[in-house]
Amino acid sequence: MSRPPFAAVILAAGKGTRMKSDLHKVLHPIAGRPMLAHLLAELAGAGAAEQVVVVGSGRDQVERLAAPLGVALAVQEPQYGTAHAVQQAEQALTGFVGDVLILYGDVPLVRGETMTRMLDRLNAADAPAAVVLGFRPADALAYGRIAAQGDVIARMVEYKDASPEERALTLCNSGLMAVRSADLWRLLALVGNDNAAGEYYLPDVVMLAAAEGRHSAVIEAEAWEVAGINSRAELAEVERAWQQRRRLRAMAEGATLTAPETVWFAHDTQIGRDVTIAPNVVFGPGARIADGATIHAFSHIEGASVAGRAEIGPYARLRPGAEIGTGAKIGNFVEVKQARFGAGAKANHLSYIGDAEVGAGANIGAGTITCNYDGFLKYRTNIGAGAFIGSNSALGAPVTVGDGAIVGAGSVLTRDVAAGALALVRPAQTEKPGWAASFRARMAEAKLRRQSEKT
Amino acid sequence: MSRPPFAAVILAAGKGTRMKSDLHKVLHPIAGRPMLAHLLAELAGAGAAEQVVVVGSGRDQVERLAAPLGVALAVQEPQYGTAHAVQQAEQALTGFVGDVLILYGDVPLVRGETMTRMLDRLNAADAPAAVVLGFRPADALAYGRIAAQGDVIARMVEYKDASPEERALTLCNSGLMAVRSADLWRLLALVGNDNAAGEYYLPDVVMLAAAEGRHSAVIEAEAWEVAGINSRAELAEVERAWQQRRRLRAMAEGATLTAPETVWFAHDTQIGRDVTIAPNVVFGPGARIADGATIHAFSHIEGASVAGRAEIGPYARLRPGAEIGTGAKIGNFVEVKQARFGAGAKANHLSYIGDAEVGAGANIGAGTITCNYDGFLKYRTNIGAGAFIGSNSALGAPVTVGDGAIVGAGSVLTRDVAAGALALVRPAQTEKPGWAASFRARMAEAKLRRQSEKT
Amino acid sequence: MSRPPFAAVILAAGKGTRMKSDLHKVLHPIAGRPMLAHLLAELAGAGAAEQVVVVGSGRDQVERLAAPLGVALAVQEPQYGTAHAVQQAEQALTGFVGDVLILYGDVPLVRGETMTRMLDRLNAADAPAAVVLGFRPADALAYGRIAAQGDVIARMVEYKDASPEERALTLCNSGLMAVRSADLWRLLALVGNDNAAGEYYLPDVVMLAAAEGRHSAVIEAEAWEVAGINSRAELAEVERAWQQRRRLRAMAEGATLTAPETVWFAHDTQIGRDVTIAPNVVFGPGARIADGATIHAFSHIEGASVAGRAEIGPYARLRPGAEIGTGAKIGNFVEVKQARFGAGAKANHLSYIGDAEVGAGANIGAGTITCNYDGFLKYRTNIGAGAFIGSNSALGAPVTVGDGAIVGAGSVLTRDVAAGALALVRPAQTEKPGWAASFRARMAEAKLRRQSEKT
Repeated sequence: MSRPPFAAVILAAGKGTRMKSDLHKVLHPIAGRPMLAHLLAELAGAGAAEQVVVVGSGRDQVERLAAPLGVALAVQEPQYGTAHAVQQAEQALTGFVGDVLILYGDVPLVRGETMTRMLDRLNAADAPAAVVLGFRPADALAYGRIAAQGDVIARMVEYKDASPEERALTLCNSGLMAVRSADLWRLLALVGNDNAAGEYYLPDVVMLAAAEGRHSAVIEAEAWEVAGINSRAELAEVERAWQQRRRLRAMAEGATLTAPETVWFAHDTQIGRDVTIAPNVVFGPGARIADGATIHAFSHIEGASVAGRAEIGPYARLRPGAEIGTGAKIGNFVEVKQARFGAGAKANHLSYIGDAEVGAGANIGAGTITCNYDGFLKYRTNIGAGAFIGSNSALGAPVTVGDGAIVGAGSVLTRDVAAGALALVRPAQTEKPGWAASFRARMAEAKLRRQSEKT
Repeated sequence: MSRPPFAAVILAAGKGTRMKSDLHKVLHPIAGRPMLAHLLAELAGAGAAEQVVVVGSGRDQVERLAAPLGVALAVQEPQYGTAHAVQQAEQALTGFVGDVLILYGDVPLVRGETMTRMLDRLNAADAPAAVVLGFRPADALAYGRIAAQGDVIARMVEYKDASPEERALTLCNSGLMAVRSADLWRLLALVGNDNAAGEYYLPDVVMLAAAEGRHSAVIEAEAWEVAGINSRAELAEVERAWQQRRRLRAMAEGATLTAPETVWFAHDTQIGRDVTIAPNVVFGPGARIADGATIHAFSHIEGASVAGRAEIGPYARLRPGAEIGTGAKIGNFVEVKQARFGAGAKANHLSYIGDAEVGAGANIGAGTITCNYDGFLKYRTNIGAGAFIGSNSALGAPVTVGDGAIVGAGSVLTRDVAAGALALVRPAQTEKPGWAASFRARMAEAKLRRQSEKT
Repeated sequence: MSRPPFAAVILAAGKGTRMKSDLHKVLHPIAGRPMLAHLLAELAGAGAAEQVVVVGSGRDQVERLAAPLGVALAVQEPQYGTAHAVQQAEQALTGFVGDVLILYGDVPLVRGETMTRMLDRLNAADAPAAVVLGFRPADALAYGRIAAQGDVIARMVEYKDASPEERALTLCNSGLMAVRSADLWRLLALVGNDNAAGEYYLPDVVMLAAAEGRHSAVIEAEAWEVAGINSRAELAEVERAWQQRRRLRAMAEGATLTAPETVWFAHDTQIGRDVTIAPNVVFGPGARIADGATIHAFSHIEGASVAGRAEIGPYARLRPGAEIGTGAKIGNFVEVKQARFGAGAKANHLSYIGDAEVGAGANIGAGTITCNYDGFLKYRTNIGAGAFIGSNSALGAPVTVGDGAIVGAGSVLTRDVAAGALALVRPAQTEKPGWAASFRARMAEAKLRRQSEKT
């Protein structure tokens, strides 16, 4: 269907008082991404021509996210209701002619395909004046109700004004709406505030259009999609709903999640087929796990890629820039950052590998540390293919260990090691016979003396 | 309301057989604190003048908790029912005149405010003989039922003796009760054991008072508050209920819990505003987290304080006496114990910092260990402001690293380092060219030989 | 009851398409053991004389599990329904006379006692032709229904063919069945494929027996026992159900699980009495925890034994062959593999102890690594009773530290240490006064220069 261009107005001027936060409500994250960024990403996917966020306080915080994306801001101050809020976007949309989608910054999970359905319905042959997004919650509570015949709205009513018959309706109003720009600005100017709160309400647009003899339509979203967030508990609820869907998707695509309820994905996590994920795994943004990889328990993976048949964890932390090659292994209490592991390379125990290149088949001993930072700059470590780094070694970057070289345990490397060579940094072992026994005897004696002095 | 003083009698003589434990039932912990200690803390808050715990077996275990708090013990042996149990406390309360609150050691979550409501009701103008604590469980099961008119008890009936009409009553008897001391001892002496079990039942006090023409009242608690614990599964259920309420409180107060169901608080955990807590965080007793701090996944925090904007974890363990300063960072696989980190100080990777002072802005390299223990005594390490400790260093306490000093990687420090100095403890790096290559060749040859010998 | 011998036919020829896996469906694990292995273990316990697995594709994978256990394979290719599948086992059972139990490889949790009940019923005095295993699910969905009088089957009906009255029946057909071998092969040959799918259905055996005037019986299993697995989501559901039952059993036997829903057991985990398990603990196969041991949060235990009153974790990883003695302690970020810790021995922090013997009361300092691997072979480390290993030491195996010896911090041991001796491997500490201060000044100057060059 060919449609006119569309703009989005995202209302985000609410005070968010119940969040008790210095962070603007719409910037609180779901799945590692600010609520507002979820909406902007879906809008970009749906092809929005213009986007305006209407803010109250906290403008600067929102601007830091919105400005780099070319999203305009409008300020609603003071705040006289949702119709008044949308009006504040009119100036930013001067010259725009097309459809306007009205969204809410604290209703972050609306999908692009739902937005598209709203716009398609607005442009259907019967040309409704407005399209409202409805939903059927498990418990309709105090949501406004929609009475419809087919998908044509007969009446919209606030819960508190609803008759018992109306309260029995299960179709509720999410508040989201699509209206042509020409209609929108004209009708908004007609909205009155003759109500208990003295506010200008956006749903009145539907009533005003009806007074002009024009009908509006409703389409339905799933309830999770229009869940709103007003408190940290609701933030956690929406996060849970998002995670639950994402886990089901990972399983449907062929991953085993031993305990799905203990795996947390980020918004952009990629999981392959026949990946196994043990209990208690956390993905931060930017993780990609290829087919057949195994993620053991208690792993934490962010900004990292894991190739096929690699094994990660338990207790492995992959930080941004970690690239783990085919069949490579990153084991317990190992942290990897900005480092590439070649195929079959291993760092199995208690190591920190940062700013490094580890060749195929290399074996990093337990307790190995790359000393990549001198307090001012970061330097890189290169470990050749098939090299063997002895336990408890510190590799003082910049440093290169050649292919197949061996570094003795406990070494502090400060110079390069040639391919095939053995490097040792180790003093002689000395022994004082009987010293430990006599030390113990002295300590025991001292203890006795202290005790007898006390008594 | 001015009230007479009150004493508490806590019944804890049950055998707890279903717990299958050598630990006395009332000492099993909820939120890191023994059940009995929960009750004693609430009683202290409510202003109890006297407290008596009635025990059967396991007296010594209970005494170790109770005696230091000035709580008396009475022994019920053998055990002839709840009325008989309360009677055993009479001697310990000789001379006490006032109200007596009867609690159960295995009903640990009763709040002080509920105790106060019971006592206030007992002292209301209509002067009931007893106040019973009722509740309305989701499933009333086999609890005894209370028939009441307003809050005046008409009849109390055991489930097994109840008619169908009585079984339909939703108000149940928790067993908790408040009675004036003068009434209590007199009425208890009248309780009989003419029942199937041959036991003396406490609720009979209400009936005996009624026979004297005196009424009793019921007040209601929430069901979670009077949940009793008879098995490890019920212990886990009560723990879950406690945690769930605590998590909601943390969120209501302005903390983000990404996955609330995976954060475990202790009874005294303090969480500030705009604190973020990632999935899988365990708090032991004594943790305080200030505003704006971030606790990453898989962290374990006990007896430690974390200042504003500090970052902890993932995989950080803060043990008792850890004090992490403003904006400081404790990273992955780092353990801190009895150590203070100044503002902005960092220990980002794989370290053990115990019995130490770390100055503001100091940077502790990966793999750093404070050697604070010689097998007999513990010693302290002092690291100056802005100092830089190279990776894989061992700091042999007692030792001081001055402000701004640098310690080279792999050092084993045994002497102090002056401010602004560089300390190195490091042998020369030596290299045997080709050694690794020939070692590999020898090993491969030996392997071939072993294989050919087998065949 | 004396019964004839019985054979089991396990159907496993389904394609398992919805699993989206290269691994055969019946090899996906529940509680760390392949589904098929669960059934084979229960069959072994119930005394099966013969076992045949009927496979389609993936024969090799199944054979690797089945062959070493003496389990025969039969191939169904192409696949014409369940009756046809069972027929493929006839050849493998040539000569076998007795009862035949028909199971499904993707219905893995059927208990041996349930199998025994089916066989006992088949051999009861009334000699039914077949015994069908029924169940009553919470939601009967589209399962086939069974109409029975007492336990005699009146009629079995597919959901799609069922009348509203039949759909109201709550007893469903699990598909599991027991039939005498003589009856089975004869009746299977009579099954037709005159249905929509053109397949030969096993339940027709009941109808065919009825046509011969012989009755069949139904016995009931619990719904979790006959849950089938067709997708990763169902795999996770069955895992969850298994874990939930196992957790309740551990608690009933006297273990405290602070957060039971975050403890994962393997099929063979052994947990003693008065064991405490903190949140987030994962058991792999082969773990045994003795009475009174404490497992702290974030521990991972596989193939290891933990003796009484030992303390493990938090963040401890015990790998196969770890044997932790009475009262010993394995602390945070410590990995133990193929190593025995004597009574009271300790490794509290950041260590890897592999292929080692640690004597009673020995104390392993933080950051200790056993260098057990030279890239080709593994060697053992022996640490004597009461020995003290200083922090950040690397023990180059094979090596022995005698009883009561002390190894200085930061040592790289390459030779044995005598009992009672002190070993040191440590260069002198050198200091360059003011070096750090002037380094910082140079770096700060360089930074300024770079900035001024940019502008």
